[in-house]
Amino acid sequence: MHVGIDLGGINIAIGLVDEEYNLLAKGSVPTVRERAFSDIMKDAAQLIQRLLTETGKTVNDIQSIGMGSPGTLDVKKKTIVKACSFPKVHHSNVGTEIEKYFPGIPVYVGNDANAAAYGEILAGTSKGLANAVMVTLGTGVGGGIIIDNKIYAGFNHAGAELGHMVLNFNGPKCNCGRSGCFECYASATALIKQTADMIQSYPDSIIHEMINHDPAKISGKTAFDAAKQGDRAGQKIVGKYIEYLGVGLLNIIHIFQPEAIIIGGGICKEGDYLLNPLNEYINQYIVTTDIPRTKLMTASLGNDAGIIGAAMLWKQQDK
Amino acid sequence: MHVGIDLGGINIAIGLVDEEYNLLAKGSVPTVRERAFSDIMKDAAQLIQRLLTETGKTVNDIQSIGMGSPGTLDVKKKTIVKACSFPKVHHSNVGTEIEKYFPGIPVYVGNDANAAAYGEILAGTSKGLANAVMVTLGTGVGGGIIIDNKIYAGFNHAGAELGHMVLNFNGPKCNCGRSGCFECYASATALIKQTADMIQSYPDSIIHEMINHDPAKISGKTAFDAAKQGDRAGQKIVGKYIEYLGVGLLNIIHIFQPEAIIIGGGICKEGDYLLNPLNEYINQYIVTTDIPRTKLMTASLGNDAGIIGAAMLWKQQDK
Repeated sequence: MHVGIDLGGINIAIGLVDEEYNLLAKGSVPTVRERAFSDIMKDAAQLIQRLLTETGKTVNDIQSIGMGSPGTLDVKKKTIVKACSFPKVHHSNVGTEIEKYFPGIPVYVGNDANAAAYGEILAGTSKGLANAVMVTLGTGVGGGIIIDNKIYAGFNHAGAELGHMVLNFNGPKCNCGRSGCFECYASATALIKQTADMIQSYPDSIIHEMINHDPAKISGKTAFDAAKQGDRAGQKIVGKYIEYLGVGLLNIIHIFQPEAIIIGGGICKEGDYLLNPLNEYINQYIVTTDIPRTKLMTASLGNDAGIIGAAMLWKQQDK
Repeated sequence: MHVGIDLGGINIAIGLVDEEYNLLAKGSVPTVRERAFSDIMKDAAQLIQRLLTETGKTVNDIQSIGMGSPGTLDVKKKTIVKACSFPKVHHSNVGTEIEKYFPGIPVYVGNDANAAAYGEILAGTSKGLANAVMVTLGTGVGGGIIIDNKIYAGFNHAGAELGHMVLNFNGPKCNCGRSGCFECYASATALIKQTADMIQSYPDSIIHEMINHDPAKISGKTAFDAAKQGDRAGQKIVGKYIEYLGVGLLNIIHIFQPEAIIIGGGICKEGDYLLNPLNEYINQYIVTTDIPRTKLMTASLGNDAGIIGAAMLWKQQDK
């Protein structure tokens, strides 16, 4: 049995995972990300203990503990070098903290987006694929690349930042300092902004009522829901969003030609309503024709992917 | 000893290569690309025979024959599915053609840009790197990706089309049908166009004299030569070109975090005059700081890389 920790800005999600990638138990505690790293990890350790008690397991049943973390990592030193959303986490050693509570158990760390991609590809609908890319549409756009069953993240373990691929160098400023990154167009945050902007030109759109005339109530679902009801503003927003997403996904296809691209994040719940027009866009613009084609899929494990992938980081140990 | 064939639109370049990647002999014949594939391969076979005679070798010394080819390939079937610049090459089987002249010798095919990247990384200044990306700035922009000492080209062997990564979706139409591809900005062709456009606003630029007032005489070297002499138009062209190239290279760094990016093609002869400002650009905009950094290098083997890489395709046989 392996423990997977998905360290998020809001919650620490933890699960006990068996060799067949089944979640035996899971739970979460608030991260309170302003705290010292040792305090955060103390709560994580307590949650692991609670899950062990709940399942009638003991520390001796734990073969490894893996943690997916945001930020810049030193995977070999098991250190979070820096993570923008964690003000007191600088050069924090995950191994040392876990050792305090679970001495002698092997510890592995990996980028959270990579771990989620790994979990999804190991255990989700894309189960069994050796080469796949995951794109997670959330607050930002996360990426995960699996090549020959291994997480690919480059020689310094910092790669797969697919959200910071520039798609329009004349585009809006991105948080990262560059302009027109994929995540400026395809994140849920971007879709919400696109929705807020577009409805200003459509005073009759049903979206105004759907959100009670309060732009703060717009979500990544709003435009899709309106479009399904035939709302013109909704359809325009979704159509444009599909184009933006299509540009980025086609870049990924032309670079990687993976067996599949798995789309994760809340927007992936739109299913075929998202995949069908995306496939149409790709069919229209793909450079490589007459050969087997990358499949588009939606993720199936939701937040569990991050826990399962983290728990299975031990499999990546030679990377 | 292995034979490497680099099938180009103008010439077929062929070399005999030993196990230490040394070129024992090389030569070339015009491709005459309008011909039937069997005619093209007949000339290739004759050139191989000539190189054998020149070096006092025989067919028995050949352990394998590898060919790098443009276009869409079926690597397993050893077939060129289609190649835009070869009108009569459709579903042409390389193995069958070579078998006519050299029966029983194993044949391998691979994408020409990938083979050149592989040759350069095996035998060039970047020798010994296990993870590197090559970007060739020529008529277009070619890409080659080496991961764990293997050519990475995706499940259908059509990946690494780095030149068709869109950098500006509002940009000019690319030959591929999309808009604002990397090669629309960073190819030698693009630099020539950028030079021709810019000098119209600079009637005093020395470039007008350098090219004898004939725009057809502009090359990828022109703007660099003028800039080195302090010409303002030249400096502006080079400065802007570095920015364009920098956007694409930074995307590649954020995606792959390779040990090195090797820049090939005629423009790479500018050496530090190209690399220094590119490194400055990257230092300014890279997202991942505080960790080991991708090295930028220029290619050292020129056209020989394609021959050496093709000759060594046998090493990739399990891919």
